[in-house]
Amino acid sequence: MFNSPCIMVGKYTCWLWANAAWACGAPANPAPLEGDSVMLQIEAVADKACLQAVSWLPEGAVRLLDQRRLPELATQDCRDEVEVLAAMRCGVVAGAAALGVAAAFGVALAARQQVTPVRDWSQELEPVIAAFAALGPMAANLQWALGIMRQTLAGIAPDADVPGRLLQAAEAIAGADAEANQSMARFGLQLLRRHHSAEQKLMLLGYSGELSGGGGGTAMGVVQAAHRAGVLKEVLVSEASPSRSGARLAAWELQRTGVPCSVIADTAAASSMKYDPVSWVIVGAERIAANGDVITTQGTYALAILAMHHGLRFMVVASTATLDMSLSDGDALEPEVLQGAAGSSQPLDVTPVELIDAIVTEKGVIERPDEGKIAKLMSIRRLH
Amino acid sequence: MFNSPCIMVGKYTCWLWANAAWACGAPANPAPLEGDSVMLQIEAVADKACLQAVSWLPEGAVRLLDQRRLPELATQDCRDEVEVLAAMRCGVVAGAAALGVAAAFGVALAARQQVTPVRDWSQELEPVIAAFAALGPMAANLQWALGIMRQTLAGIAPDADVPGRLLQAAEAIAGADAEANQSMARFGLQLLRRHHSAEQKLMLLGYSGELSGGGGGTAMGVVQAAHRAGVLKEVLVSEASPSRSGARLAAWELQRTGVPCSVIADTAAASSMKYDPVSWVIVGAERIAANGDVITTQGTYALAILAMHHGLRFMVVASTATLDMSLSDGDALEPEVLQGAAGSSQPLDVTPVELIDAIVTEKGVIERPDEGKIAKLMSIRRLH
Repeated sequence: MFNSPCIMVGKYTCWLWANAAWACGAPANPAPLEGDSVMLQIEAVADKACLQAVSWLPEGAVRLLDQRRLPELATQDCRDEVEVLAAMRCGVVAGAAALGVAAAFGVALAARQQVTPVRDWSQELEPVIAAFAALGPMAANLQWALGIMRQTLAGIAPDADVPGRLLQAAEAIAGADAEANQSMARFGLQLLRRHHSAEQKLMLLGYSGELSGGGGGTAMGVVQAAHRAGVLKEVLVSEASPSRSGARLAAWELQRTGVPCSVIADTAAASSMKYDPVSWVIVGAERIAANGDVITTQGTYALAILAMHHGLRFMVVASTATLDMSLSDGDALEPEVLQGAAGSSQPLDVTPVELIDAIVTEKGVIERPDEGKIAKLMSIRRLH
Repeated sequence: MFNSPCIMVGKYTCWLWANAAWACGAPANPAPLEGDSVMLQIEAVADKACLQAVSWLPEGAVRLLDQRRLPELATQDCRDEVEVLAAMRCGVVAGAAALGVAAAFGVALAARQQVTPVRDWSQELEPVIAAFAALGPMAANLQWALGIMRQTLAGIAPDADVPGRLLQAAEAIAGADAEANQSMARFGLQLLRRHHSAEQKLMLLGYSGELSGGGGGTAMGVVQAAHRAGVLKEVLVSEASPSRSGARLAAWELQRTGVPCSVIADTAAASSMKYDPVSWVIVGAERIAANGDVITTQGTYALAILAMHHGLRFMVVASTATLDMSLSDGDALEPEVLQGAAGSSQPLDVTPVELIDAIVTEKGVIERPDEGKIAKLMSIRRLH
């Protein structure tokens, strides 16, 4: 174990806590954290039940778990699309898939608010869809969910129960996300087992867990599956400055589900790869280009370079909804567009496909990804 | 310019601020920082005079600038060695050379407190010296300064004015540090000019400025010299989690002296090297092994790998006092010993010499350093 200043969180150790006011402390006798005690509150969360980032209330409202206030489990009920938009804009919802689910329910809500007779539903709701889309141009799952809502709208007869059909579509999106996550967790676990037979140590960056969609999350879903299957020794969670979604959300969720984890400062990743190597670095994705370049949490690009330098494997876990066949490669993006998903203070970066060992999707795993393999995987989709 | 969520600090932009509570804001209209407003206070510091981390008061006390409370300019006066030790232990003093200067004055203070007649000064003061040495086993400057104090003690006749001679030695150490920094700044500037004729952009990690010794600092001294010489366009300061010494101290000092700078999250270094490359990454050092491996602020190892990946140059600025000819290489250290200097919550890491383009010392510059070149440089020292 790389032995650095740390605090104890429950039975787990959090190294190198990122806090200006933080003083060194020996593991057994940690110094108090000033101004930042989120992690220390973890144990106060007794509720081990499944969390739901976005849920539909029968009375016709969307309930959002306020992810900014975790570990406090505060929710916010939105009764129209304006409230959903406002909540997403200020970061109540975070995580690729949850943004899509929340936006889909937001569109369904907008349809229910419509009191005057509507001749062209598509035209009526397009401004709402566009407003949601503008929240995260790089969040492929968000754009994918809104695409489904648009298609659904286009296919409904004007005299049908349009609000009801849109709500069904939103519920289907939520269900598809959860299902995709469960498949990815299975495929990811198979991949872990294929390369290492013994218990292994993994590294995560940023947040890609239960709250980012349902069904256990993407990268986090693989970690949880590995834990349940008994092949996981420990997870190192890089804090992911500036949002610190790794330290705040990922570590919190791992702790909640009893997975042994340590939070490391972003600056500690290289040393820990050298002295106490992990078998895989695992991350989620906001968008994947047609050639396999991955647009995701800022800091991923650095971890991929560091993993290659140290001969460690690098896995991206993301559903095919994040695969954008219209984006030829990551270099087609201007750095200015990597602004992060809606409400996130975490910008994105581009990890070139050359640095990626495997992309795990709900349709299967692509090892040593390239344009041809991705196109082949996407063609499977059309057959189902 | 890599365009990411940012706040404006004076006329400079601070990107990607590391704060869990920080919400995105457009540059022109930054969101408020909750719980962390250090940088926003920078402009309140009107005093542009030279700062002194450690100074001797004529009445027989050591005045320390409390670096934890910057940008507030609070000082702490220590009247005996116990107070100096306590202050250093809790991080009042930070920065390689300042630790050595503070410890030397601490030893001088201890001699002045001696009220009973002393037969063997060396034996009397050795526990004090050992207590200071234990504060930072990896802080070579601290050990070097204490070595000089030991030698001075050994060379003084018992009937001489021992407290007076020790005070002179401590003052000489402070003077030598300041002088070394000025030489390094000159050599570093020559190196910058030799490789690039145009204005250039530099990257810093951690703190190595004026407060770390005097005379302008090590890596920071080179940056300041480049600014005065008109060859500097901008400095990117990586925040250096977990202590955030880059964001707190380095950016503050650059701002104070009018050097254009941007603070970047540690996770943004790789992307900014790709999209908006710097000519050099410049860092200080706590200790340098005989083969050129550099032990310094955690995060340096990662930056060196990233710089090599992007074809950027990497410079270490450190006086020969940090060169430890008894340490064959960085791999001779257990990761557990990289605990950082006294009072620092920033652990250290080892950057292998293969990743370093130049080591700048007060005796000269070593390009493509290796064991032979370092031994040759150190032999010059014996001639003077």
